[in-house]
Amino acid sequence: MTKIVEHFINGEIVADDNSRYQDVFNPATGEVSKQVAIASKATVEQAIGAAEAAFPAWRNTSPAKRTQVMFRLKTLLEEHSETICNMISDEHGKVHHDAMGELTRAIENVEFACGAPQFLKGEHSKNVGTNIDSWSEFQALGVVAGITPFNFPAMVPFWMWPLAVVCGNTFVLKPSEKTPSASLFMAQLALEAGLPPGVLNVVNGDKEAVDTLLQDPRVQAVSFVGSTPIAEYIYTTGTAHGKRVQALGGAKNHAILMPDAALDNAVPAIMGAAYGSCGERCMALPLVVAVGDEVADALIEELKIELAKMKIGPGRDNSNDMGPLITKAHYDKVKGYVDLGVEEGATLVVDGRDTVVEGYENGYFLGGCLFDHVTPEMKIYKDEIFGPVLGIVRVKTQQEAMELINNHEYGNGTCIFTRDGESARYFTDNIKVGMVGVNVPLPVPVSYHSFGGWKRSLFGDLSMYGPDGVRFWTRRKTITQRWPSASLREGTSFSFPNS
Amino acid sequence: MTKIVEHFINGEIVADDNSRYQDVFNPATGEVSKQVAIASKATVEQAIGAAEAAFPAWRNTSPAKRTQVMFRLKTLLEEHSETICNMISDEHGKVHHDAMGELTRAIENVEFACGAPQFLKGEHSKNVGTNIDSWSEFQALGVVAGITPFNFPAMVPFWMWPLAVVCGNTFVLKPSEKTPSASLFMAQLALEAGLPPGVLNVVNGDKEAVDTLLQDPRVQAVSFVGSTPIAEYIYTTGTAHGKRVQALGGAKNHAILMPDAALDNAVPAIMGAAYGSCGERCMALPLVVAVGDEVADALIEELKIELAKMKIGPGRDNSNDMGPLITKAHYDKVKGYVDLGVEEGATLVVDGRDTVVEGYENGYFLGGCLFDHVTPEMKIYKDEIFGPVLGIVRVKTQQEAMELINNHEYGNGTCIFTRDGESARYFTDNIKVGMVGVNVPLPVPVSYHSFGGWKRSLFGDLSMYGPDGVRFWTRRKTITQRWPSASLREGTSFSFPNS
Amino acid sequence: MTKIVEHFINGEIVADDNSRYQDVFNPATGEVSKQVAIASKATVEQAIGAAEAAFPAWRNTSPAKRTQVMFRLKTLLEEHSETICNMISDEHGKVHHDAMGELTRAIENVEFACGAPQFLKGEHSKNVGTNIDSWSEFQALGVVAGITPFNFPAMVPFWMWPLAVVCGNTFVLKPSEKTPSASLFMAQLALEAGLPPGVLNVVNGDKEAVDTLLQDPRVQAVSFVGSTPIAEYIYTTGTAHGKRVQALGGAKNHAILMPDAALDNAVPAIMGAAYGSCGERCMALPLVVAVGDEVADALIEELKIELAKMKIGPGRDNSNDMGPLITKAHYDKVKGYVDLGVEEGATLVVDGRDTVVEGYENGYFLGGCLFDHVTPEMKIYKDEIFGPVLGIVRVKTQQEAMELINNHEYGNGTCIFTRDGESARYFTDNIKVGMVGVNVPLPVPVSYHSFGGWKRSLFGDLSMYGPDGVRFWTRRKTITQRWPSASLREGTSFSFPNS
Amino acid sequence: MTKIVEHFINGEIVADDNSRYQDVFNPATGEVSKQVAIASKATVEQAIGAAEAAFPAWRNTSPAKRTQVMFRLKTLLEEHSETICNMISDEHGKVHHDAMGELTRAIENVEFACGAPQFLKGEHSKNVGTNIDSWSEFQALGVVAGITPFNFPAMVPFWMWPLAVVCGNTFVLKPSEKTPSASLFMAQLALEAGLPPGVLNVVNGDKEAVDTLLQDPRVQAVSFVGSTPIAEYIYTTGTAHGKRVQALGGAKNHAILMPDAALDNAVPAIMGAAYGSCGERCMALPLVVAVGDEVADALIEELKIELAKMKIGPGRDNSNDMGPLITKAHYDKVKGYVDLGVEEGATLVVDGRDTVVEGYENGYFLGGCLFDHVTPEMKIYKDEIFGPVLGIVRVKTQQEAMELINNHEYGNGTCIFTRDGESARYFTDNIKVGMVGVNVPLPVPVSYHSFGGWKRSLFGDLSMYGPDGVRFWTRRKTITQRWPSASLREGTSFSFPNS
Repeated sequence: MTKIVEHFINGEIVADDNSRYQDVFNPATGEVSKQVAIASKATVEQAIGAAEAAFPAWRNTSPAKRTQVMFRLKTLLEEHSETICNMISDEHGKVHHDAMGELTRAIENVEFACGAPQFLKGEHSKNVGTNIDSWSEFQALGVVAGITPFNFPAMVPFWMWPLAVVCGNTFVLKPSEKTPSASLFMAQLALEAGLPPGVLNVVNGDKEAVDTLLQDPRVQAVSFVGSTPIAEYIYTTGTAHGKRVQALGGAKNHAILMPDAALDNAVPAIMGAAYGSCGERCMALPLVVAVGDEVADALIEELKIELAKMKIGPGRDNSNDMGPLITKAHYDKVKGYVDLGVEEGATLVVDGRDTVVEGYENGYFLGGCLFDHVTPEMKIYKDEIFGPVLGIVRVKTQQEAMELINNHEYGNGTCIFTRDGESARYFTDNIKVGMVGVNVPLPVPVSYHSFGGWKRSLFGDLSMYGPDGVRFWTRRKTITQRWPSASLREGTSFSFPNS
Repeated sequence: MTKIVEHFINGEIVADDNSRYQDVFNPATGEVSKQVAIASKATVEQAIGAAEAAFPAWRNTSPAKRTQVMFRLKTLLEEHSETICNMISDEHGKVHHDAMGELTRAIENVEFACGAPQFLKGEHSKNVGTNIDSWSEFQALGVVAGITPFNFPAMVPFWMWPLAVVCGNTFVLKPSEKTPSASLFMAQLALEAGLPPGVLNVVNGDKEAVDTLLQDPRVQAVSFVGSTPIAEYIYTTGTAHGKRVQALGGAKNHAILMPDAALDNAVPAIMGAAYGSCGERCMALPLVVAVGDEVADALIEELKIELAKMKIGPGRDNSNDMGPLITKAHYDKVKGYVDLGVEEGATLVVDGRDTVVEGYENGYFLGGCLFDHVTPEMKIYKDEIFGPVLGIVRVKTQQEAMELINNHEYGNGTCIFTRDGESARYFTDNIKVGMVGVNVPLPVPVSYHSFGGWKRSLFGDLSMYGPDGVRFWTRRKTITQRWPSASLREGTSFSFPNS
Repeated sequence: MTKIVEHFINGEIVADDNSRYQDVFNPATGEVSKQVAIASKATVEQAIGAAEAAFPAWRNTSPAKRTQVMFRLKTLLEEHSETICNMISDEHGKVHHDAMGELTRAIENVEFACGAPQFLKGEHSKNVGTNIDSWSEFQALGVVAGITPFNFPAMVPFWMWPLAVVCGNTFVLKPSEKTPSASLFMAQLALEAGLPPGVLNVVNGDKEAVDTLLQDPRVQAVSFVGSTPIAEYIYTTGTAHGKRVQALGGAKNHAILMPDAALDNAVPAIMGAAYGSCGERCMALPLVVAVGDEVADALIEELKIELAKMKIGPGRDNSNDMGPLITKAHYDKVKGYVDLGVEEGATLVVDGRDTVVEGYENGYFLGGCLFDHVTPEMKIYKDEIFGPVLGIVRVKTQQEAMELINNHEYGNGTCIFTRDGESARYFTDNIKVGMVGVNVPLPVPVSYHSFGGWKRSLFGDLSMYGPDGVRFWTRRKTITQRWPSASLREGTSFSFPNS
Repeated sequence: MTKIVEHFINGEIVADDNSRYQDVFNPATGEVSKQVAIASKATVEQAIGAAEAAFPAWRNTSPAKRTQVMFRLKTLLEEHSETICNMISDEHGKVHHDAMGELTRAIENVEFACGAPQFLKGEHSKNVGTNIDSWSEFQALGVVAGITPFNFPAMVPFWMWPLAVVCGNTFVLKPSEKTPSASLFMAQLALEAGLPPGVLNVVNGDKEAVDTLLQDPRVQAVSFVGSTPIAEYIYTTGTAHGKRVQALGGAKNHAILMPDAALDNAVPAIMGAAYGSCGERCMALPLVVAVGDEVADALIEELKIELAKMKIGPGRDNSNDMGPLITKAHYDKVKGYVDLGVEEGATLVVDGRDTVVEGYENGYFLGGCLFDHVTPEMKIYKDEIFGPVLGIVRVKTQQEAMELINNHEYGNGTCIFTRDGESARYFTDNIKVGMVGVNVPLPVPVSYHSFGGWKRSLFGDLSMYGPDGVRFWTRRKTITQRWPSASLREGTSFSFPNS
């Protein structure tokens, strides 16, 4: 019998009455491994209702007590890391060690959440006027929601819910229906860690679930990570329904390779960033802009050597470097982009299209592809391919490289490889991108900073997790207080008050 | 010849080619005092263009240098305070001392802006991983805009532009066409203080100007204060065009009067908050919820005495307590609400409808009105009247009073009058309102805290001015940096990075 | 064979060559339970050397990695809480549930330490001048030391070392030789949690050990909690040797009981604060200043009833409310103060001097004593008795009560019992005491605030643990950086630089 | 008649009864220009008394009102900048443009002080336990004092008193008796700006005044800048009298010149830093450590050219680059060091000992001196010379250069000249110096960061001005508050409280 991934509402696994289900595949084998329930509007409303019911008590629980759950959850996640990473490998396809990297990042967000008593502090002002004090409180919003993508089944949900919950909110999570198992399992661990039923609920589903979350007036805030068209839809729909929304979209991250870059550092960095997780990361590196032909030629020679060594195969085998793509449809799409790149006139230096993994002939494996002479007019330059396809663009100056980046639709991540302090500083100052690396190819901010791109990579004003996350998941309240005194009386003032 | 209020673009007074003009009235006399230019789309685009051209140099000016303009502006505003307050009184009608209160608050926002080098600091983390550092920068957005209401011609624009500008942005301000003069004059003072041309531009106008600002892709952010329907329009339109938006709307602020309140403190506080500036403030106090009949009766006796003493007349006469309403249309609307209140069954204890000011018979003067026995079903309870009309609601318990407030559409400001610590703490904790006073009837946060309501009083996630204002007017950039070392080499990692 | 409590150096239990030992008593039985090694100068230097050797690697460990030890330590402390609390009860005498309260506070300091990546952030300023950036780093000091008192064997060491260590320092702890076991055991747990050998070392000892720590040039900072004369010695000696020192001394905490206080809340609060842990706490409450005879009389009636019910006995029996005093000498001293109070003319309302606990006739048990009519001239008013002796002072006004407090030598903790907001605010504003409670009798700041008295209760400028603790355990470094540009050259400036 | 510089106490110029006076010289002419009063103990106590009397009202003035004085003071200082700079040039000798640089830095500290409402905010925690709140306040200390050196007559006093005063303290300043006029004049400007009499007092004097400040129990804190032996005396004496003290001492700042440094940037930077203000700055650069002979030789060639062009003469002539030394005695001492350097075997490449300025033959002018082949054993390497004497040390590696710096007694400022990111990062991370420049020769932190060296350059734990200054000038108070509720009663707890 096929395993079924249901919903998790009010601390219990809940099956949907309407019985819509969708296949979950193992991308390494191409086989259906499970079925996932697709929530009806009623089921999502049930989850919202559970969250609403859990809110008053949880909101009144002291931050220090809320963090106790997070401390325990960290320990449980570490204890069950193998199980979680296997779930991820089996549904997403990424190699086990890569899943472990993702899980570590997830846990780091739990660690940050453990600091709630510190980061929830308001600002207290004595004597804003004579004997008048004023302070701010950052109060919980109520029921909030997160909608997350397939490519980080553990990490992205954990960018959202631990912080939201430790701020006093109650949560409805809708993970990707392609990779649903980890979220469900981790929510059960949270319950085990002491999170009261209803504080975190998980519903699997599709557009019906999403729209319910966006429209239900009880949902106060929505956090989203996915592609730009959907992010834009989420943002405009959610805000039109009076919610606060942060919606993170697509990316096309460029690295600039300067002539003085340390190639022996840059090459492995680029390899990992371009092909790790099959390029299915919003912080992946699909483009390298080489400044000068000399460094471009040298880079390509090195990459050819490295690509020849790169080991492709199922994620459960930890000796592999890269696993399969997520679905057959996505495999076809990425392969189509490689075909298109050839048509558009780019030089396909390494062609991974014929890759077959022995014993996994039905898996969605595509070998690493490398294009040289990519130009800004090409679709393979403009579009987010989300596959193991790296393009080299050749330019003459750092300035030219930066203009390319600044003119691109997306502004998620970027990197410069250089040894020179001034190059790095000019780059970080003037590049129109939210997350910037200097010799760091995947400049994902650590959990105590915040994640967010610029331009069409982020809709909203606050980035995700870290300090901005705290601000997103709370509502500011400002209290101004004075106490009347028997000995201190004032006349009426019809003027606008000032201290 | 009628004085004409034009636009201020790129450091110069600019007349519009399309020559639409609108009358500006003196509400104390009912006479047309000036004409205000109504900007065409082209003129607004000219202002946006000026701001765009001024951006690169201003953005690269160090925060410490930008603040020098603010220091000088503060001095200039203080030197010209009489002129500014007369402009306000003449166009808005409020009494001169009230205008001075408003101006002081405007200047306090300039003072806060002087702290830019401090509040623009990012967070720096050494060793997020081995020899990897990470820090955040809060960079300017580019061209940003503010759209402001008639009721605080000096203060509300200064909630926005000094902070936006000191953060490195360039600004287009569209003030109310009913009270345009102060903004124009103060922008010229900013120029005199050393603000480079184009950094602050003022366009007068109507919906055409507003829509241009909302739709032009060069405008990165819009800040708005006005009524809730317009705020909602601004928010959904602006966000649909990819901008960050904060839009502050209407209010219906309740004060709770507890049985233990110090009446001799509460009565003058309520008088000023209910009738000051004719009730035309989003932080005005149109409702008092009295807990118990005893305190309700006592309050009403006192208010009757105070209302009899309240002096009504033109704003230029500083001995007056209250001036006229803003327009004839608004006078009719407010008077209509008083008529309606009587119809709805509330007890009109004091009737200001027949008030005539000698020598100012055409002015829009309405006397202070006081209703008793207002109930939540009445329209005079639900609607924002924005006039000198105070309603008393009678309840039995603090809890009942709080439920009224929590169920109201708006959540801007509120206040409790009590001597009891526990009553105050329970109130401030559980009330669903953004700005909360304890024995402070107009709990407007000082400039170093932030202004924002809850529910339909604020669209967006960040409040206005103060710390939230800084966050609104800047874009987060996170840099992650490591330097390659000749002696320190790494192998390729295809896993997701973690420290 | 008597159990011997040795030292813990470089991850190992170390016996001293010089073989000085001192008895450790069980105060409930009066019997010698163990012997504690008294470190020679050489042994302390060995510990300092171990800490010095461990410093470079630990300092270069990323804060995120250092916190992993703290996360694990929290779990281990919870798992071994029974063992630790038994050690505390057996050596100190306090009741097991009271030891658990202390341990919980210790763990809360570990929880705060888990936030190191957040609280170690420096401040980053872009463009302090044109293209010049500046930021601060909070770097570890090196080898640091803590000297702790007998009364909180678990908590006070944990106010110091987890924070010091997570900031990158290495530590030598000298706990009280009266209650040494918990520190030693907990240090071993830290090793088990992954703390590298040498990062935390424990030496037991007396003045020789203290002086070695104060004089050794390798020790960068000393944190101390104890009596005021020793605190002053530690402070002047340590600073004279170029170290940073914070030295917390004695206390004589007053509570003000206002006429409107809620007695049913105040009485249990006072009972616990006065007699809990036999009054051997620097935050104990040995004085209540009653405002008006009415509330004084009522209080005394209630306290008599409560004292009659208070159960005294050995700490291992969790049904007891109060255990024995720490030593025979201290028992004699406290009893002597009760005798003196009678001589000085105070009214001994309840006399605990004859208390004998059956089966524990040799234990150092003193019953709760209550004096009325204590006056400021008496030695029992002025001196820190550190025993179960509560004095009532009668005054006529809040002002008079506050003057008493403000004139006292100590300024550690204080409290007011009232319902009135103004009384509370006037008190908290004007009282010259570092830790102030409103209806909270033991206002010990939580771990994410900081602990410190005023006047002769604290020598130094930074309080202990929390934000001040972070500042104490780190050294500020400010970096100012610009990169030379080929296109940007400057002339020589002989003037003092300004941006 | 000689002009006499008296004291400024309680808003008035005060002459001392005991009539001790000391000559003030013009170092450019060698003539006595004024006499300065030397305060007796009684006069200093009078100043302390004035400060004590002014404290209660000033402490209760809201921070926003206190800052109004600072805003006006900034304007007044700018208006009187010529007068102030002339005072400085005439008494100190430094060139007018250099005095203006110093004054600008003084004003920047006033600007920072204008942010008091922001930086005085405490931290507010809701629900540290159920219905228990806790917050911190940073309260004024009371009477505090500053003791400042001759070399920055305007700047160093302004590192201290504006911040101390805006935090609510009242101040006694004892400036250098060699350069007293600017402090007195600027204090009078503060009075004109609205500072109440007694809030800032200035006493001129010598050790008698210093000791009075150190011993008087009314003085709560002392801030000092001067030489290391005096700093150590101030620190140990002040702390032994129970005060908080920060005492900044001497320096011997090294710059590392890396082989890849941009010489055309480094040479003017080194010239200004070594010879500006005659080297009489604690942030001056008396040592350059050149890594490799090649860059050393090139540097020396360039410096010889620059030194030949350097113009020496009286400070009033703004075309000069360098003025005279402060006194004849100091001239002799510095010249003696040059003689000694020759004896010790260093190579005197440029000899400024015979410099005579025409028309100023009695001025204390010493030409710029340049030594090559300075080694760590020499006294000219070890001692702070405080004159226009630059020494070049030659080493082979960056590591060797850094060890020199790390082994030196002082750790005030340092700098590296390089283009390489890794060199810079390794240097800033590992160098044991408080203020570190990367291509910035005088890395004085801006006013919104904090100034402080390491090792024997700073006694105390908090740096001067900026965020650390705020902490130094305030005392932390932590309030923990709950309100008793009729419906919420608790039993007695004898255990130690935890949330």
